[in-house]
Amino acid sequence: MPEVLFGVDLTKPMEDQDIPGHNRWHPDIPAIAAVDPGSSFRLECIDWTDGQIHNNDDATDIKDVDLTRVHVLSGPVAINGAEPGDLLVVDILDIGAFPNSEWGFNGIFSKENVGGFLTDYYPDAAKSIWDLQGIYATSRHLPGVKFAGITHPGLIGCAPSAELLDKWNKREAELVATEPNRVPPLAKLPEPENAVLGSLSGAMKDRVAQEAARTIPPREHGGNTDIKNLSRGTRIYFPVYVKGANLSMGDLHFSQGDGEISFCGAIEMAGWIDLHVDVIKGGMAKYSILNPIFKPGPVEPSYSEYLIFEGISVDDAGKQHYLDVTLAYKKACLNAIEYLKNFGFTGEQAYMLLSTAPIEGRISGVVDIPNACATLAIPTAIFDKPILPV
Amino acid sequence: MPEVLFGVDLTKPMEDQDIPGHNRWHPDIPAIAAVDPGSSFRLECIDWTDGQIHNNDDATDIKDVDLTRVHVLSGPVAINGAEPGDLLVVDILDIGAFPNSEWGFNGIFSKENVGGFLTDYYPDAAKSIWDLQGIYATSRHLPGVKFAGITHPGLIGCAPSAELLDKWNKREAELVATEPNRVPPLAKLPEPENAVLGSLSGAMKDRVAQEAARTIPPREHGGNTDIKNLSRGTRIYFPVYVKGANLSMGDLHFSQGDGEISFCGAIEMAGWIDLHVDVIKGGMAKYSILNPIFKPGPVEPSYSEYLIFEGISVDDAGKQHYLDVTLAYKKACLNAIEYLKNFGFTGEQAYMLLSTAPIEGRISGVVDIPNACATLAIPTAIFDKPILPV
Amino acid sequence: MPEVLFGVDLTKPMEDQDIPGHNRWHPDIPAIAAVDPGSSFRLECIDWTDGQIHNNDDATDIKDVDLTRVHVLSGPVAINGAEPGDLLVVDILDIGAFPNSEWGFNGIFSKENVGGFLTDYYPDAAKSIWDLQGIYATSRHLPGVKFAGITHPGLIGCAPSAELLDKWNKREAELVATEPNRVPPLAKLPEPENAVLGSLSGAMKDRVAQEAARTIPPREHGGNTDIKNLSRGTRIYFPVYVKGANLSMGDLHFSQGDGEISFCGAIEMAGWIDLHVDVIKGGMAKYSILNPIFKPGPVEPSYSEYLIFEGISVDDAGKQHYLDVTLAYKKACLNAIEYLKNFGFTGEQAYMLLSTAPIEGRISGVVDIPNACATLAIPTAIFDKPILPV
Amino acid sequence: MPEVLFGVDLTKPMEDQDIPGHNRWHPDIPAIAAVDPGSSFRLECIDWTDGQIHNNDDATDIKDVDLTRVHVLSGPVAINGAEPGDLLVVDILDIGAFPNSEWGFNGIFSKENVGGFLTDYYPDAAKSIWDLQGIYATSRHLPGVKFAGITHPGLIGCAPSAELLDKWNKREAELVATEPNRVPPLAKLPEPENAVLGSLSGAMKDRVAQEAARTIPPREHGGNTDIKNLSRGTRIYFPVYVKGANLSMGDLHFSQGDGEISFCGAIEMAGWIDLHVDVIKGGMAKYSILNPIFKPGPVEPSYSEYLIFEGISVDDAGKQHYLDVTLAYKKACLNAIEYLKNFGFTGEQAYMLLSTAPIEGRISGVVDIPNACATLAIPTAIFDKPILPV
Repeated sequence: MPEVLFGVDLTKPMEDQDIPGHNRWHPDIPAIAAVDPGSSFRLECIDWTDGQIHNNDDATDIKDVDLTRVHVLSGPVAINGAEPGDLLVVDILDIGAFPNSEWGFNGIFSKENVGGFLTDYYPDAAKSIWDLQGIYATSRHLPGVKFAGITHPGLIGCAPSAELLDKWNKREAELVATEPNRVPPLAKLPEPENAVLGSLSGAMKDRVAQEAARTIPPREHGGNTDIKNLSRGTRIYFPVYVKGANLSMGDLHFSQGDGEISFCGAIEMAGWIDLHVDVIKGGMAKYSILNPIFKPGPVEPSYSEYLIFEGISVDDAGKQHYLDVTLAYKKACLNAIEYLKNFGFTGEQAYMLLSTAPIEGRISGVVDIPNACATLAIPTAIFDKPILPV
Repeated sequence: MPEVLFGVDLTKPMEDQDIPGHNRWHPDIPAIAAVDPGSSFRLECIDWTDGQIHNNDDATDIKDVDLTRVHVLSGPVAINGAEPGDLLVVDILDIGAFPNSEWGFNGIFSKENVGGFLTDYYPDAAKSIWDLQGIYATSRHLPGVKFAGITHPGLIGCAPSAELLDKWNKREAELVATEPNRVPPLAKLPEPENAVLGSLSGAMKDRVAQEAARTIPPREHGGNTDIKNLSRGTRIYFPVYVKGANLSMGDLHFSQGDGEISFCGAIEMAGWIDLHVDVIKGGMAKYSILNPIFKPGPVEPSYSEYLIFEGISVDDAGKQHYLDVTLAYKKACLNAIEYLKNFGFTGEQAYMLLSTAPIEGRISGVVDIPNACATLAIPTAIFDKPILPV
Repeated sequence: MPEVLFGVDLTKPMEDQDIPGHNRWHPDIPAIAAVDPGSSFRLECIDWTDGQIHNNDDATDIKDVDLTRVHVLSGPVAINGAEPGDLLVVDILDIGAFPNSEWGFNGIFSKENVGGFLTDYYPDAAKSIWDLQGIYATSRHLPGVKFAGITHPGLIGCAPSAELLDKWNKREAELVATEPNRVPPLAKLPEPENAVLGSLSGAMKDRVAQEAARTIPPREHGGNTDIKNLSRGTRIYFPVYVKGANLSMGDLHFSQGDGEISFCGAIEMAGWIDLHVDVIKGGMAKYSILNPIFKPGPVEPSYSEYLIFEGISVDDAGKQHYLDVTLAYKKACLNAIEYLKNFGFTGEQAYMLLSTAPIEGRISGVVDIPNACATLAIPTAIFDKPILPV
Repeated sequence: MPEVLFGVDLTKPMEDQDIPGHNRWHPDIPAIAAVDPGSSFRLECIDWTDGQIHNNDDATDIKDVDLTRVHVLSGPVAINGAEPGDLLVVDILDIGAFPNSEWGFNGIFSKENVGGFLTDYYPDAAKSIWDLQGIYATSRHLPGVKFAGITHPGLIGCAPSAELLDKWNKREAELVATEPNRVPPLAKLPEPENAVLGSLSGAMKDRVAQEAARTIPPREHGGNTDIKNLSRGTRIYFPVYVKGANLSMGDLHFSQGDGEISFCGAIEMAGWIDLHVDVIKGGMAKYSILNPIFKPGPVEPSYSEYLIFEGISVDDAGKQHYLDVTLAYKKACLNAIEYLKNFGFTGEQAYMLLSTAPIEGRISGVVDIPNACATLAIPTAIFDKPILPV
């Protein structure tokens, strides 16, 4: 087992850990350790909500979740010699739940508290608890389903430079300004309350808390991409923006469907991740890299039979939208949920199933004006009974 | 070989075929044949442009393509006993190019003539010709690349009812009305010029030509979904809207990447398709079906190593868009193209490569406000040299 | 479609074709054509029995099959410039049944007439006829099963040199001499009766007929390897023993399980095969090649769920054999057949199913003295009902 | 994490563990625990040699290994209610190395000490040490290779009944009697020396030690099958011969090629395995089960490009053997080794590579008298450079 660079005590929130991590992005958050290129190490992670959700049958914790505390991240880890313009090569060697904490949760956030992809259809909070048994997950709240996890960090990336951070804050503020009272909001802007910023303290901490970007959206550095394929064996090439790269991660998912549609949206868990790091000097320019690129590992769950649903960019009111993949995928999700209701699932259960199982969401056609066509593929083997039409 | 229900002569346009097909959607286009559930049959297809594109090195034909003639479809085939509310079960038994026409084309349409997904970046017409050698495609216009096709009909579906047709025309006209002079247009509305409507003639033909919907967008019935996974061995369940179902298809693709991004966007070809049909009575209500669903076949090309590019919904001007998967996928495509330029491809070549090769386009994250994250995966084995960063 | 170098008329036996092929191996059989490296071409093939088996429900033709007439091969094709010591690089571009002959047969040979792998258990002749519908095969003699074919030439290879031929004949004669009256025989030695030897005639033909090796076993050159994975898209590297290489092939299989256990053992068919050839000069020494090597294509049927049976090298009398994989695989086959009998199949049906479906036969353990362990894997999706224990 | 039913201390041999396991098969070895159907639990395992092999560069330990001490097994675990004639359903939930022991070994045994599959070619002891980094293995003794493990128990099965044990001992003794002085021996007969028999003691232990079968060969109950596909997520159905079933296992392999050809033949490791058990009453008769059957899990490493070698049943002296798959596979292995020598590997290295990497060994043709054809498939992605012929 590689050395644990960052350990956690699951009984405490992130800010009370011996060495706290962080829940905002800022170049001035100090690295918790420095390693050489070629090193392997382990980071332990609290679940993304900082332990707010409990293994019980009551969704009140989901409903009342305090999102000023998310996502709690482990790191940053500095890589000696990495400089802006380099590529940081990260191999995900392995990832898992803690032996004494083999469970995870999925939640539908309430519309009042950021909601989710289908919040207009399912505005109320709901929760499913998942038991992790080796490679498999099952849920007492979603009987009839069992699947192999495609375990991954929902969030991983390097610290932004000051310039990149400014750009993020500016463009997100401009978006929010277009509809400042929207529920749910268009974006989450810097929020000093409950900011955890590693070892920073005093005035420095106050300044950084004011400036630091929220961790919710994916951005140029990767971050909260929620790409399910960043699983075991994956090699990721990250852009480096600051000296040392300052790599952080968290938001471990035992499994997730493409889109992570219920927002609290995968099987969220605490756990550990083993990484190997290396550096390609000057790699950003050499390969014209703006966002991370990656090569997935060879052990993703391999299901061969899928039932696939289509969606097009016409909304419920019958209004035609122009090549809107987001809407098309929403319709594909809704079509799948309505279908699954015929097999004994409630709408909320089906919604959480699409969020958690290894569902493929594809941009199938995106030029046939005016309709985009998105598809959502469900592996049929995850059900304990046949689900094809007969 | 199953019986040929619809044959074509590639030296003639669709309207001059002995039994012409059609290039518009309308419930009153008569079926060219009727078959019983349980039947297998073959349909031959002209390429979607009706033979306007030629196997040469000059892209003028792409630039000047007359889109009033598209998509030429083979059919409709009536299925005895099928009624509105049923599901038509269609098995794609096999599909291929004609022995004497084993080539296909990919084109970038000019911005003046509908353009494509990246028309703001690549506004000029371009063309690549692909040689089909058994399961493989190669192009003299795109050296260094060879891949196995995922052959499929870009367009397949049942005739709309009069009510459904009205809905289509109304919503698309409303969209166009929001920006009527846009180049390229937001949608293509009914167009009597060059309408081919099977055996209709006289006043009937004139009326239908005025009413019939264009074939360009996918819609509730499926139609031009351009889903690459409707390949050999796939079973599709289509909603039935008219007595007899009236199934038509065309726009055969030897191969296509998710999104079909260059619009003329796959390896477009003439060819044949063998189908088996059956009916599930009352299946639409039984399974809550609004759009087609399908189960892909077991012989898709299986590549195991992918290089994957990310994109987020921030535009080139740095403006933040809200959970816009279309934009995120556009950025992933552009990121991939810039990367491939480092390996000897021109931008246009890379654009056509993403359109034609078995690229996966995924909706990876769609709830992390305000950024959607889309990913584009390229199988590395299609290149004749390594393309991973080193 | 590539040029047809070798055409067949299915109404005639091989010796009556306009340009006859051959059914023995000998270096002096003249090439029917010569092509340059880099060429693509098509060969048409009669089924391996030379048309002796018919599409009916009577197994008399299997029982009485005249094996002096097998395997009828198409070729030889000379490749200009190929010389002994080179590697002939053959790409299988595509392969298929003739449009007017989309059926195949599987047979259990009677013990009196060579028998099969399980001839001691199933000594009587039996036959199943398979309907080929696009990528799928079904049989009226084996209801409840449908699978995608892994279509391949059972037999393909280059002509032996005179020295290699001598070696073959000598070693096989020595084997037969150990038990000359065995039923079935240990090997089939040169047999002038019904030898078809291309354009040879007169004394030359008589001599070659006396010397030429039978086509039944695989040998150093490949030949009748019956490797199901030589399917679409495969690249094979063949040793070259004579000037021009003289490549021949036949014994097309729509599908086959590993082992081809019933001897007449795949879904045997007539059809066509498209090839591309090239030469690696001096490749045998450069890569230490004694037998062909190959890289399978990317479109093999991909089934993900298998039920697997084990066998060990203890015979029915309870006698222990030493690391005998042949026996272990025989027991795995018998175990599978006994299992399948519980699901409504007769023993003969199950035997023919294992011969024809895309079954995997693996040498799992071969050092754990004294038992070898072989495994036989059946894809569960080929059945129309569940076959796992419950 | 499920409850640890059987723990080990890696600093001590099996007989000195607090609760010792066993290294022989006998119905009278007492269960170390009893669980109900539906239970999950963990067993810890010492490597199969009982810790005799060390993480260093000296193969003396391999050469001098004391095989009277193998295989040390964890268990037996009794399953309440299981009776002879039932099927024990075992799910392999997960399996792994210990965090403080992430390494494994592969060895070529010397011909004097049982040897291996190619002992006539590689008679001397050799060793490679493998570093386990998450899903991947690499070896300082085999540079240029890295692959994802297909981790599994080499040995797992239920205790034999007294009758079955008698049958084993009798048939193996008869085999040894045919060539009693053979080096290596044809089989390993009961051996009281170093027998570890759980909690047995005194006269009872002495009797059992005289009677108990060695663990080396796979037998009707499964046992040391060395089937690499019994990996994560696999469900196995074991025949039950004694009340309680008495399930034991050991010989954990991080990875192995089909055949486990070097005998000490996988990447051998200590570690843990998590299981779930259930019972199908009367399942042996219901499904005609003589040997275990299983359904592999969905997370085997998925490599798509293979280079495949053929072998036929002609020995080095040129003698023809009759449908001898063992010999054919031996030749395929030797062909692969000779090929790999051209890429910088020694013969011993290539031999150990074939033993450890996820190599597929297939029984391709087994009826084409007199030659069997076996194939050996190597995934090309495990090498750090191209290995196809050019």
